[in-house]
This record gives sequence, structure tokens and C-alpha cells, in this order.
Amino acid sequence: MEIISGGVTAPIGFLAAGMHAGVRKNKKKKDMALLVSKCPAKTAGVFTQNVVKAAPVMWDKALCDDIGLCQALVVNSGVANACTGEAGDVDVAHMAELVAAELQVPVDQVAVASTGVIGIRLPMETIAHGICELSGMLSDDLESGSHAAEAIMTTDVYKKEIAVKLQIKGKTITVGGMCKGSGMINPNLGTVLGFLTTDLNISQELLQKTLRNDVIDTYNMLSVDGDTSTNDTVMIFANGMAGNDELLETDADYPAFAEALRYINTYFVKLIAADGEGTTRMFQVQVAGAESKEGARKLAKSVVTSNLVKCAVYGSDANWGRLVCAMGQSGIAFDPYKVDIIISSEAGSLKIVENGVCTDYDEERATEILSPDQVCFHADMHAGTETASAWGCDLTYEYIKINAEYRK
Amino acid sequence: MEIISGGVTAPIGFLAAGMHAGVRKNKKKKDMALLVSKCPAKTAGVFTQNVVKAAPVMWDKALCDDIGLCQALVVNSGVANACTGEAGDVDVAHMAELVAAELQVPVDQVAVASTGVIGIRLPMETIAHGICELSGMLSDDLESGSHAAEAIMTTDVYKKEIAVKLQIKGKTITVGGMCKGSGMINPNLGTVLGFLTTDLNISQELLQKTLRNDVIDTYNMLSVDGDTSTNDTVMIFANGMAGNDELLETDADYPAFAEALRYINTYFVKLIAADGEGTTRMFQVQVAGAESKEGARKLAKSVVTSNLVKCAVYGSDANWGRLVCAMGQSGIAFDPYKVDIIISSEAGSLKIVENGVCTDYDEERATEILSPDQVCFHADMHAGTETASAWGCDLTYEYIKINAEYRK
Repeated sequence: MEIISGGVTAPIGFLAAGMHAGVRKNKKKKDMALLVSKCPAKTAGVFTQNVVKAAPVMWDKALCDDIGLCQALVVNSGVANACTGEAGDVDVAHMAELVAAELQVPVDQVAVASTGVIGIRLPMETIAHGICELSGMLSDDLESGSHAAEAIMTTDVYKKEIAVKLQIKGKTITVGGMCKGSGMINPNLGTVLGFLTTDLNISQELLQKTLRNDVIDTYNMLSVDGDTSTNDTVMIFANGMAGNDELLETDADYPAFAEALRYINTYFVKLIAADGEGTTRMFQVQVAGAESKEGARKLAKSVVTSNLVKCAVYGSDANWGRLVCAMGQSGIAFDPYKVDIIISSEAGSLKIVENGVCTDYDEERATEILSPDQVCFHADMHAGTETASAWGCDLTYEYIKINAEYRK
Repeated sequence: MEIISGGVTAPIGFLAAGMHAGVRKNKKKKDMALLVSKCPAKTAGVFTQNVVKAAPVMWDKALCDDIGLCQALVVNSGVANACTGEAGDVDVAHMAELVAAELQVPVDQVAVASTGVIGIRLPMETIAHGICELSGMLSDDLESGSHAAEAIMTTDVYKKEIAVKLQIKGKTITVGGMCKGSGMINPNLGTVLGFLTTDLNISQELLQKTLRNDVIDTYNMLSVDGDTSTNDTVMIFANGMAGNDELLETDADYPAFAEALRYINTYFVKLIAADGEGTTRMFQVQVAGAESKEGARKLAKSVVTSNLVKCAVYGSDANWGRLVCAMGQSGIAFDPYKVDIIISSEAGSLKIVENGVCTDYDEERATEILSPDQVCFHADMHAGTETASAWGCDLTYEYIKINAEYRK
């Protein structure tokens, strides 16, 4: 696998465009994106587990479950089209119809995603105008992919895109992607959106299975603030234009594709954690020696969602008591007196807990290690061989400012 | 039921004392308390569900499970005696032995509680000296009860005690209590501790059952920061000295006792939420019309633990999207388009959501209603008849300061 330039337009046969259409007031911010595959692409998706699902989430879920094919994706930022009642469903269908008419594709092969304010209607005139303009701007160059990646940003500070290429069944195939995410949900913005494209030839079923398995260890192991959005959407479109024979799960090359997906989604998850609202520091929690995989995941996730751990990370404080306590509230049984904890970063590493009690470590050295932008906590449970990683960010004054004082 | 003055020494036959023994450096802060019953009291307790349990929690749990009787309780603040390995168990036993020797009571009838820094040993010489002094200070006056309530405080700003009296089987019985709690767990401090006393004659089994049922709707519905302490302990001591015939579950007066417990624990839970670290505003979430009781509880609890709701409360922001979203991530199924939400406080009330969508409410009026120290969100799910309440507090700059920058 090789990392290459570009994003969603890197694979063969994908066109994109991004622009400021006027959904958002700030004219410097792009707010609509269009992504098109030259031929129908097998489409898989995973969506928010929140009981309250936005209208576009319901639309895309049906698309993946029913036809499993897609030729176009339209995305807007600024308005989430969530908690909008039946009017929201009407608006989603209308967006898909507008794209279908513009591009001459079937309406049930158009995916729709929205992110932004909850509870207000989409400005449909602006949206219609945007769709019309975007279809005239579509291009397969890398810059157009970047414009699309910019258009789906909300509180994100950084644009998030990547592409990789690898060999599958004697052909070079490419996987590209763009995503956004900063706060899980927000007064004016919100949500994780991730869209991957590939020219791989693969069945919809295997694409769905591969994506679902991958998300368990990537997006599901991420927390900015513990709040699950109504709009979370991760989708992958595979148009088969690389010309390989259909990739099967039993093929020797299948793991390479799964690995490419894992690489891209992990890359995005780290970027989202690092770009979390108000964040000054991203942290990774690696759990090793767990009895079960699911246990390892829950232990790691419990640490990245703990407010007290997040405050300690903000303060560069090796507060091991909070780390052990956060694992203890995961609901996973373990022997506290077998746990070792090592902190690490580019500044070095240090064992701060051995057999569940504090080592006689130097506090100043610990603070030094926990001071860079990215730090890691490695916990060995000494109960088995399973491992998991989770990613989070610190809890800061700025997070509260963004989410409590946005009016001021 | 009548609310009367005092706390743990209000019932017949309970003595208490509180003092600065030296566990904490600040000489103005009391840090040890002793509570004694003149005769063995039936003792029930509920304890932290964290897998990592502090040494005193294990000790008290065994006391409740085994003998179910107690004559003395010793509590220190400043050091939690958690994550201290076998040495921590030795220290707890030693504390109990010192109290037993001083008061001439069996060591297995001495309860021990600690709250404070995780991972460091108790200063046993200081503790021993404190126990010796405290036994000479024991008194049944209300002031001594207050001293004990002060001694168990950590980051708490307010002392928390209450007493009520009621008639049971022709006798006046009294229930008193003290508790502490501010952050769930902390660098220097932590934990919820609650201790109730009563002169009621009741079996240990029924006492345990009543307490356990009560905690489900009181302490378990409270969240300051979502972090579960290693030391959480709520115990009740019933010495029977009111002289009533043993209270049975089938007695007509039993609900009055359960109601007294509910009143006291709800009172404490509200105080803890209002005294949460860095808090400027306490909020209650009332869920009505839920399909099941457990569902109602999970919906309410999910709202009080949401960081984004907590930020909105800090900003006096009627952010109904976050409220609906927080209920949606509880895992409880409901129809979002049946939900009504009313906000209320001493400044009035206002329906902000009807059938899952925003009412055309006045934003300034909503901010006015959400500006007092205590506010309430009332959500009607229109799916059944079950109700539940939960209590929380806002997330503020000060919370982060306390928990991230304590070194500075």
C-alpha cells in the first residue's frame, strides 16, 4: 500500500465539486459538495446509533439496504436536517430528485448528507441553486476533491482527505476519502461524516461487511465529547473501474483492501480527535493483555470518554488514579493489581503504574512526556492477549466557550 | 414526616465527633469523623460499581454482607485509600482495630470510609491519634453531628446534613444523615459518601432492601461529571432505640419510612449537584410518559451526563436539539416525533418542543427561564406512564480549572 496525493477523486471514475452556495452565512466557507461516479458504484454505509436519526441518514440507510448502488452524493454543511419531522424527509427526497434530474441518474441512486444546526429546515432554494451550479463544476482533478472536502467542514479547523493505492488481483486500485468532525453535535454544527471512494470491483455485501468491521475499531473508538450525533454517516462507494476480477473475502488480496480501509479510517479518526472542538492535545489509549477484544475496546473507550482524564490530559498531568478509575467504570472485570500503565510521546516514555500501584516516577519527567500535541497511554491488563486502541482529546476552556457561549 | 434540626445525631442513641486530625494540610479543614451507636445498629450499604474498589469499600461491603451490624463508623477525608494494594487492606483493618479498642466494641462492627487522593497510603500515626482524640469528644448533641458532616467534606463548598421525624407503629422515629460529594473523583479528593442514622427497629434485610431500592432513584440518578469513584459509599445504621415493634414490609407504616429515606437522599443528591465542582447551575431532568421505569431512568440520566447539555445549561441556552439528541443516545427506543419538552424554573415555564419539533418560542424568554441557579427540563415521551428524575450540573471553566490546573 502506498499513500498518494488527493482524496475522493483519486480513484478512477470519480468527479467532485465543492462551493459556497449560501446555506452558511460566511461566504468564505464552502457549504455544498457533489461527488459523482461515472458508473453505478456498489455502496455500503454505517450510520448513527442514536435513536434520533436525521432525515438524510434514514434516506442513505435505505439506499444501502435496498439497492446498494449509488451514482451521486450531495452534501451540505450548515443545516443538519435533523428533528425536522416529515418536512425533513420531503426535503431529502427533493434534494435527491434535483441531483437525479441534473445528472440524469436514477433518484434512488443518489445519496444525501447534511451537517449543521438541528431542528431547522434546509433553505431549499439555495440548495437547488447549489446543485445546479455544482453539476457544472464537476471534475476528476484532485483540486475538485479538495473543494468537496472543504465544503463538508463545520467547526473543523483542518480539511481531512487522503488516498492510497494498492495491488489487487494484478490491478492497481485506489481508495480515496474525505471526512469531517470536530464536535459530536453542536449548536450550529456537528457530526462525523466520512466518504470513501474506490475503483475496486467488489460485491456490495463484502463492501458493507468490510466497512462495518472496520468502523468498530476506528470511528467507534473515537470520542470528542461523548455525545453521539443524529447525523453520523460513513459511506464507501466502489465503482469497479480499476478492472480487477471481483474481490472475494477468500482472496489472498482481501486483507490488503481491509488494511487500506483501516489505514484511511484510522488516519481520519486521529485527525478528528486532533481537531476536536477546543482541543490542545490529542491522546491515544492503547489497551493490551485484555481477556477479550470487546473488553479491550470498552476499557480503551472508557478512558477517552472520561471528563476527568480529559482534564488531566489538558493539564499534562500523569493522573494514573483517574486512568485506572476510568477503566474500572467500563463494566469490564479485571484485576486492578495486575495493571501496568506506560505514558509516551515524542518526548519519551515512562512506566507510571506497575501491578496497579504507582511507580516511584519523577513527576516533572511525566509532565514533560505529556506536554506534546499527541500523547499516548498504554495499559497492559495482564489478563490475556487482546488489544484495542481509542482516540480522544483534552477538555478545555475553549470547548466550553464554543458550546456554552456561542451567542456572545 | 416533619423536617427537624440536626443530622446524624438527631436519632436516639447516636454520638458523633469531627475534627482536624492532620490528614489534610489545611488546618481549617476537619478531616476525621467518628459516629457511634449506643447499641449495635442494623447496617445496610450500597457501594461503588467501579471494578476498582477502594480498600474501605471492600471492608464495609463485607460488614453489610456478613454480620450486618455496626457500632461505630470512622471516616477520613484527604486520602482515599484506593489503589493501595494489600497495604491498603491492612490499613483499613488497623483503623477498625484502633476504633474497636478505643470504644470497646467488636472490630467486625466497625465501618471505615475514606475519601481523597487515590494511590497513596493513609498516614496511620495521624489517623491513630485522631481516633484517640475523637473518642474523647463524642457527644449526642446536634453540633457534634455537624462537625462530623464537616469532616467528611472535600471540594464540597456546603456541609450536607438533614434530619426528619415520623410516626411508625405508634412511636416517633427519627432519621438523620450526612453526606459529601462534589466531583466524582479528583486529583486531591473525590467520591460520594452518605451516612444515615435512625433509631427505627427494622431487620437488616429490610433495611438493605429499602436502601438499595431508594438509591436507584436518588444517588444513581446523579451525575456531576460522569466519572464513578472508587470509594462511593452510602450506608444506613438503624439502632432500634425508638422502641417500635419491628417494622415489616407489609406494615401500613412501611411506605412512610421508605418515603423518609427518599426525601433525605433526594435532598442530598440535589445538594451534591448544586455543589458540583465549578458549578454555577443545578438542573433536574424529569422524564414522563415513558414506556418503562428503567427506560425513563436511562433517558433522564443520559441528559444529565451529556457534556453538550451541560455546556448549554452553563450558557442558559434552550438547546432542545441537544436534549433530544442526548435522549436518543440513551439506547432507549422512542418516537422522536412524540416528544414534548418544557423548560422551567422560578422564572416561569415554557414549552420549547412539541411533537419532536421546535415550538415558535421566544429565545429571550427561554434564556430568562434558564438563568436562575436551579432549572428543570421536563420531557414527555407520550409512550406510557412511567416517570423518572435525574440531577446534574453545568460544565464550566471552573470545573476544568479544578481538574486540570490544580498544580498552578
